[in-house]
This record gives sequence, C-alpha cells and structure tokens, in this order.
Amino acid sequence: MAIVLGPNRYGKAETRVVRVTRDGATHRLKDVNVSVSLSGAMEDVHLTGDNAAVLPTDSQKNTVFAFAKRHGIGAIEDFGLLLARHFVESRPAVGHARVEIHEYGWNRIAGGHSFVRDGGEVRTALVHSGGGAETVVSGLTDLVVLNSTGSEFHGFARDEYTTLEPTDDRVLATAVTARWRHRGTDAAWDASYRAARDALLAAFAGTHSLSLQQTLYQMGRRVLAEQDGICEVRLSMPNKHHFLVDLEPFGMKNDNEVYFAADRPYGLIEGTVLDDGAPAAPSAWN
Amino acid sequence: MAIVLGPNRYGKAETRVVRVTRDGATHRLKDVNVSVSLSGAMEDVHLTGDNAAVLPTDSQKNTVFAFAKRHGIGAIEDFGLLLARHFVESRPAVGHARVEIHEYGWNRIAGGHSFVRDGGEVRTALVHSGGGAETVVSGLTDLVVLNSTGSEFHGFARDEYTTLEPTDDRVLATAVTARWRHRGTDAAWDASYRAARDALLAAFAGTHSLSLQQTLYQMGRRVLAEQDGICEVRLSMPNKHHFLVDLEPFGMKNDNEVYFAADRPYGLIEGTVLDDGAPAAPSAWN
Amino acid sequence: MAIVLGPNRYGKAETRVVRVTRDGATHRLKDVNVSVSLSGAMEDVHLTGDNAAVLPTDSQKNTVFAFAKRHGIGAIEDFGLLLARHFVESRPAVGHARVEIHEYGWNRIAGGHSFVRDGGEVRTALVHSGGGAETVVSGLTDLVVLNSTGSEFHGFARDEYTTLEPTDDRVLATAVTARWRHRGTDAAWDASYRAARDALLAAFAGTHSLSLQQTLYQMGRRVLAEQDGICEVRLSMPNKHHFLVDLEPFGMKNDNEVYFAADRPYGLIEGTVLDDGAPAAPSAWN
Amino acid sequence: MAIVLGPNRYGKAETRVVRVTRDGATHRLKDVNVSVSLSGAMEDVHLTGDNAAVLPTDSQKNTVFAFAKRHGIGAIEDFGLLLARHFVESRPAVGHARVEIHEYGWNRIAGGHSFVRDGGEVRTALVHSGGGAETVVSGLTDLVVLNSTGSEFHGFARDEYTTLEPTDDRVLATAVTARWRHRGTDAAWDASYRAARDALLAAFAGTHSLSLQQTLYQMGRRVLAEQDGICEVRLSMPNKHHFLVDLEPFGMKNDNEVYFAADRPYGLIEGTVLDDGAPAAPSAWN
Repeated sequence: MAIVLGPNRYGKAETRVVRVTRDGATHRLKDVNVSVSLSGAMEDVHLTGDNAAVLPTDSQKNTVFAFAKRHGIGAIEDFGLLLARHFVESRPAVGHARVEIHEYGWNRIAGGHSFVRDGGEVRTALVHSGGGAETVVSGLTDLVVLNSTGSEFHGFARDEYTTLEPTDDRVLATAVTARWRHRGTDAAWDASYRAARDALLAAFAGTHSLSLQQTLYQMGRRVLAEQDGICEVRLSMPNKHHFLVDLEPFGMKNDNEVYFAADRPYGLIEGTVLDDGAPAAPSAWN
Repeated sequence: MAIVLGPNRYGKAETRVVRVTRDGATHRLKDVNVSVSLSGAMEDVHLTGDNAAVLPTDSQKNTVFAFAKRHGIGAIEDFGLLLARHFVESRPAVGHARVEIHEYGWNRIAGGHSFVRDGGEVRTALVHSGGGAETVVSGLTDLVVLNSTGSEFHGFARDEYTTLEPTDDRVLATAVTARWRHRGTDAAWDASYRAARDALLAAFAGTHSLSLQQTLYQMGRRVLAEQDGICEVRLSMPNKHHFLVDLEPFGMKNDNEVYFAADRPYGLIEGTVLDDGAPAAPSAWN
Repeated sequence: MAIVLGPNRYGKAETRVVRVTRDGATHRLKDVNVSVSLSGAMEDVHLTGDNAAVLPTDSQKNTVFAFAKRHGIGAIEDFGLLLARHFVESRPAVGHARVEIHEYGWNRIAGGHSFVRDGGEVRTALVHSGGGAETVVSGLTDLVVLNSTGSEFHGFARDEYTTLEPTDDRVLATAVTARWRHRGTDAAWDASYRAARDALLAAFAGTHSLSLQQTLYQMGRRVLAEQDGICEVRLSMPNKHHFLVDLEPFGMKNDNEVYFAADRPYGLIEGTVLDDGAPAAPSAWN
Repeated sequence: MAIVLGPNRYGKAETRVVRVTRDGATHRLKDVNVSVSLSGAMEDVHLTGDNAAVLPTDSQKNTVFAFAKRHGIGAIEDFGLLLARHFVESRPAVGHARVEIHEYGWNRIAGGHSFVRDGGEVRTALVHSGGGAETVVSGLTDLVVLNSTGSEFHGFARDEYTTLEPTDDRVLATAVTARWRHRGTDAAWDASYRAARDALLAAFAGTHSLSLQQTLYQMGRRVLAEQDGICEVRLSMPNKHHFLVDLEPFGMKNDNEVYFAADRPYGLIEGTVLDDGAPAAPSAWN
C-alpha cells in the first residue's frame, strides 16, 4: 500500500456581499453568500507545503467583491459562472472551479431605498466549470409548506415493530430543499426560478397525497414538465410531523383541530426525478 | 447570614401547537409556541421536595392543548390571558402566571388548505396575571430591515481608541426586536399589531438617520403617537454593520455599491420610549 | 401624555478576542467574547441625532483589543472591571458601563502551543460600574448534566388536565445556567469559579431528587454555603425530558433502560437562593 | 424525453435514544442520534402513492428503540450494522439500508449515576448494507483545534486581486470533520476511534505548517499509517481565521498577542488521503 492524495479542493466560503445599484433615488439590492472552491494541480501544497499553485482564499474573496462592483450581481447563476470561469481561465493551476451562491430576498418597504428581509426560502445556485465542461444547478432551500388536509397514509407495510395507525386525514408539512439541473448555461434564470418555485408550490398544494413520496415525485415532475431546459430535479423533504393531540382524557374529541408540531425525529424523504435521456452529471451536484 | 429561597417560577416552555379551524373547505391556521411560568407558594418543593403545590409542567402542556381545542386560538394576547387567568384562578398555590407566546405566520398558496410559512418576523405576546393585576406586552422579533442610503454618522465623540471615519452615507441595517406595553387588557390585538408593525417600518424607512439611536427613538415614538392604548415601547436593535469594501487596490472606486455584511461584533442599541404619565410596570417585561 | 425617552444603553456586542501569552515555548490562551454597553447623558442622540456624547461602538471594540494587549486578559471578572471603569472614568457623558464576557475553554494537546477546544460549559461574567457602585456577577451556561437514577417525582398536585404518572425512578437531565453575585469586587475569581462549578456538580450528583426545584435549591445553597464572598445565586434549569420508551408492543419490558431524549416542550425551573441579609441589587443581573 | 424516478431513499432521521446500562450501582450511558434511510423497490409509492412496500418511518424509529433494549448499544458502528442488516434482511422491498449515528460523550461526575456532557467533538458512524456489500465509515465532527504558533503562509500565487501579506507566524485554527473508511466490518471500533482521534490531534499539533492543506494531508496520512484496517480518510477543515489586530493607531505593537476571531468568510480546505490500492467505494460516504 502507498498513501496518496485523493480528490481535494479549497476556497473561500461564505463571503457575504451586498450589492446596491442606484437608479436615481430607486435602489436595487442583491444580498448573497458566495462560496468558491478551486481544484487542480495541488499536490505540492499538500505534500510539501509549497504554495506556488495556491491562490489565497483571501484573493478569492477579493475577487468576489471586485466582480460585484465591475459586473454587478444579476442572476446568481450568471454571477457564479462569471466567477468560476475567471478562476479556471486565469489560473493555470486551477483545473476546476465550483461556485455556490445563496441569495436572501428583500422586499421594499416604502420609498426607494428601504427594505425588509423576506425570511422565507433561500434561492441557491451551484456552478461547476472546468475541463471544458460546465454545469448549472439552481434551487431553493427552507421553503416551508403545509397542507392541513388532503393527505392520507395507509396501506403501508407492517412488521413486528409497527404500531402506527393508518390515517385518511393528516397534516402534511415539510421544509423543501429542491435543486434542479439545467441542460445548458444560458437560461433566463430569474424567470426559470420563479416558474420552478411556482411549480413546486402548485404541485404540493394540488396533489391529494397518499404519501410524501408521491408528493415529492409530483413536485419534481411538475418542474420538469414545465421547463424543457431542466433535465433533473433532486428533492429532500423532511416530514415535519404534526401529531394529533389526544384530548380524550379531557373529555374532548380532537377532530383534526389541535396538533403538536414535533422537532425530532422526523421522516426524511429524498428523491430524484429526471428526464431519462439526460446525460448523467453526478459531479454537478457536489 | 441565613440562606433562603428567593424569587422563583417554573412551567412548561415551548409547547408547539398548531390549531386548524375549518370553515368548510377553507382552513385557517394558527401556529404558536407557548411558554407558561407559574409562581406562588412554592417553598416546600424547593426546601423539602414536597410537590403538593406543584401542578406538573406536563399538565400545563395539556392545558395549552385543551384550551386550543375548546377556545380556539384567536389573538395570542387573548389566548395568553385565558391561560394565565386559568392557572391563577384554578390553583390556590399559584399566585402568579406568566404566559409568553410566539406566533409564526403562514400565507395561503392556493386552494383552501395549503400554506407556505412566512419566514419573516415572529409576533410575540407576554402576559402576566396575578394579585389582581394584569399586564399585556405585545411585540415582534427578527424584523430585519435595511436602508441603503439616508443614514449618516458623524460628529461623534473621539478618544485615543477612535479610528472610525465619519460618514454621510452608509447602509443602516438592523433586526428589530420591539415590544410594547398596553394600558389595558382588551385591545383589538390584531389591528393593533398590524398598526404597530406598520409604524415601526414607516419610521425606519422615513427617518433620515444621523444615528441608530435616533431611528430607534422615532420608531418607538411613532408607535406611541398612533395608538393611545400603548404606553411604553422597548426596542433592541443590533447595528448589523455593512462595511464598504475597499476596492482601490484593484483600481476601482466603491461608490457605495459593494458592502461586506459582517456577523460579529455588532453595535447593539437598546432603548425605551414611553408616555411619561404611564404607571411603571417593570415586571410586565420579564 | 408626553412621549419621552426612557432607559437606554448602547455598545459593541460580541467582540471576539483571542489573547496569546508566550512564556517561552509555552503559550497560554484566553478566548473571550466581550460585550460593552454604555449609558448616560444620551438624550440628544435619541432626540436630535446629535452624536457629541456618543463614543462610537467601534472605539469600544478597539478598546477591548488595546486593553487585551496592554493588560493581558486575566480572570474575566477583572478584565470586565478594567473595561467598565475605563469607560466611566474617561468619558464624562458615560454614567454607567456594563461589560459582559463569555469565556471559552481550551485544553492542551501536546507541546506548548497546541490546543483543543473544551466544548463544555461557557464561563460568564457580568460587571456593572457607575455612580460609585460596582457589581460583579459570575456564572456559567450550558453545563449539561444527567442523573440516570436517584430522581423521583410524585405527590404532585392534580387537576382535570393531569395525566402524568408519578414515578420513583426517572432520568433527570438539565443544562445549567447559573450566575452568582459577589459581595465585593476583588475575589480570587478563578478559584471561586472552580469552587462554584464543583459545588454545582456535587450538589446535582449528591442530591436524591424529589423534584428539579429541590435539586436547584440544593445547588444554589451549596455555592452560598461554601463561599462567604457570594451572596446570591440565580439558576435557570430546563428539565430536559428523557421519556421512558414503551416497549410492551414489542414484547419487551423497559426497565429504565431505553429513553427518548425530547427537544420541546421542556420544563423550565428558575429560582434564586440568597443570603437574606444581602443588600438587593436587581440591576446587577441585567 | 420521458420523466422517470431516479435514485431515492427514505427513513426516520434523528431518533434520539439514551441507553442506560446498570452494573449494580454503576451506570453506563450511551447517548446517540440515529438516522435510518432505506431504498429499494419504491417506484409504486412515488408514482401512485401505493404504500405496500413502505415500512413506516415510525416503525424504523421503534426498531431503533427495541434494538437498543434487546442488544444494548455498543460501538455505534456495530449498532449501525445491526440495524442496517435487520432492515435489508427482514424487508424484501428494501434492497439497501443506510444508518448514520452520532454519539455524544458524557463524563462521570461522582458516584455511579451522575454525568456531565462532554461538549467536544461528536463521534460519527455511517454504515451501508445491501446487495451483499457493506461499508463502514467512522468519524468525528466539531473537533476544534488551534496552534498559536508553528504556522506559516507565504510563497503563494498572486494575481491582481491579491492583497494578502505573507506571514511566517500565524494562528492556525480549525473545526475538524474527519471520516475514515474501514476495509472490513469487524474492527475493534472503540480502540480504533481513540487511535484515530489521537492521530489527528498529534498530527495537527506536530506539523509545522506551511499551509492548512499540508496539515490536512499529514492528519489523514497519520491515521492511515497507524491503522492497516483503514484505507481512506476524508477531511473537511474550515480555516477559522484569527486576524492579528492592528494596534499601531494606539501606539502599541501587536507581537502575535491579540487576535480577532472572525466568523465569515472562512477558508475551507477539503481533501482525501487514501491507500492507492484500496477499492473505490464512493457510495460509502453518502
């Protein structure tokens, strides 16, 4: 056996940049969290501490700020591509760049320069560039949704450890993390994002659910069915259990009215829905 | 010296209850986190472990669920009063009850029973009842706001450790925690809450700020000026620093466009604005 | 009614400073989080935005760093007093200073300059100085302890919402937040801290508990009984419920072996133990 | 194009179980967080909501508790294998089981049944079983370490965005997440864990570091060199920056004494060290 260096990457994570664009008295705000990871000819630094190939993570941070000034921040997919290409093209030792961006939303209060943070879901983008190939995965996280009826769960497998009662009317709640892979690298990102988010919500609300898996599949399917430019959707959906409280000891019947929202444990449903003709791209997601 | 028992209280914290009300196919959702604290004749349990006066915290949790069924959950101030009065009136050993409730907002997606969590600010209520006196403090937390201009900071005191440069145009951002004390216990809570939230946002947006203290004062003042039923406002506002990035090393001028959003340290501004004729009620806030 | 400014304070929160002291090849590490709050003649800044009395929070941060260099960081109580006195004595507009410090522990790995973070409890100090009076409150937070037996709970009050079964053998677990007020301002802080922590642990382990309130009282009592310099102890102890899992459906008897560690809701027990001759000092704790 | 279901899995996450073993008056405590994920013939539930193949996540939770009773909880690797094999062997529809366990440490206070939580690193295990193959990955997370000297960083690449000054003496701090893959499934897990942890600490402390990458490689190499049963190590190490504070404006020289511990952004160094003859097992890590 010989001990060797395997896959590796390094970079500056979570550079928090806010970009203000002034159109007269009306300002526009972009609030993002940028994480860069570079890989390439990095054997020397690992084996001997020779940093000749290592662009400091501090320089990567500076690049994020400088690009925010020079190019502005449009769709986070575009900003990610811009950064990833820059590192690959400008640094011979960098064979591959990964850029992940999270975007926090803000709504206008009044006037042109006052905003209130939209505390809902976070929009995400993950871009890879290197070796002549590029991938773009868009997504969102922490989209918390709940159906107060229209959800059943019965007919499931049973074993010696099964005590769960079947139900034909339960609360179904989850915090959606969804990511979708684009076929290309030049979509209308903002419109695509809005359409995907709408599709996820519409499918969640519109599916009479016999299981969270079924709902998950419908959500992924809807995104794919509506946008030709998207070829694969990955969803991770915790089943945020809302347990019907037993009120009989107090002489009351709980007719699906009072629920205890539990923290842990929780079900966790993860799945992929894809175009079966799409070329596989496992590294696009990492 | 004699070692004695001082002030004490106990209860069940963070009972997470979701109450669904069905109006035909249209459902209404209340999602709250209820914390109860009782105090009274509790010497014995502390000194000898005699639990005769101790209503279990488990019973308090059950009470929250049972009341949610029986009475529904209207404004959290009312639900808090209902609970607090119940404990004081039904338990001789309980001289005082404190109920704190946090409410999480949900918006409708589509149809009558599908909701998406509003991830913004959390609405709060703190109710005290006991000894013939009652207080109600309403509030909110995590209302994150930002002005991208209209904020200055100069003319400040300087000492040997002062290196800060004055500025006449900075980003001002904060996460507002505001609480306001009502004169009585029977306001139109929901309308009052909306008005107070609107006043806070309007004052934040509408104040050309020379300091965060000035903005804080204007926010509190606005709430008081608009609602006779409110006599005291307490605000806690971290100054979420957005530092202008120095781009000169890269040959660029940063004309208030690119900011670094820092985590720690942060300024913390806390203040009270009140009607000078209002009776003091320090315990209302604890 | 007239709207007026009430109590207020401002400062720099959470300045994270690590101080290294080199004794030849052997280094000593202090890792602290310092929060400063000043108050005094601050009407103008609130009412008109005139900052003449306002020492910037940035200067406060600089002071923390400069004092860490000049004086080193000894016991956090001493460092807090040093800072608080500095602000009160050097700034005419500052009538009162509050300094809160959290200290994170580190253990040595090997050699003189390598450390591993002690992830246990955080040591705390809260110092007030102003108007000729000074108070020092020491403490700790997140000291998580568990007794796997020696805890009972029965003989409690019952009402119509009580379903809890009495038990004579349960798991008792809590995350202790304890604070204790010193009579003076010049104790041997480090020795006092170690003794107080030891007393809390010994009382928790050594008390056969009939209720968490009883345990709490014994913990406070032990600290007071062992240290004359301490006159008041305040404890906040969540009852981190460990529920015995019902294994009967699977044909097994759970003889106090398998527990589910719940998150929410939780009991919350708060209490004070004090020398009945100690002068009251409510503001020492805020 | 046809829309199809891709890879998927489901299970109960974060079942928090505490297992007490009584050896007379001396108790032993195991505190773990167990997450189960099953996959297999799950097309129907996704496509039609037919749950016939779906063992409820609630049953999985019950199984964790029942196994904790019946078998006790020894090394978490063994407990994970036990659970994973059970699901694969007992459920025809389950082709593959993944079990992830986190273990929280406790130290004895005094007596036989009192414990204080060790707040340091969390021990982890990830087990896969299915299709006749099994993998075991052990690890730890949140092992926070710091070298106060013995770390340099210079000779790095520079571009137009590089402003970082080289240094020959800096603080090096990180929160280690390490995972290591075993060749087999029957090691002496506890001894192996202790040896791996020791090796990580020894290599961190013992490496005079020219870059965090070099330190990472030495840490992985040490684990492999000392244990033949381990064939691959993956490390993720944030560079928790400690910036030297500029004290010159206050007339002081900062001789590597006072550091500001920053939150974000941070460097993030990720790498693999492996036996070049080890068979690849990418799915062991997911």
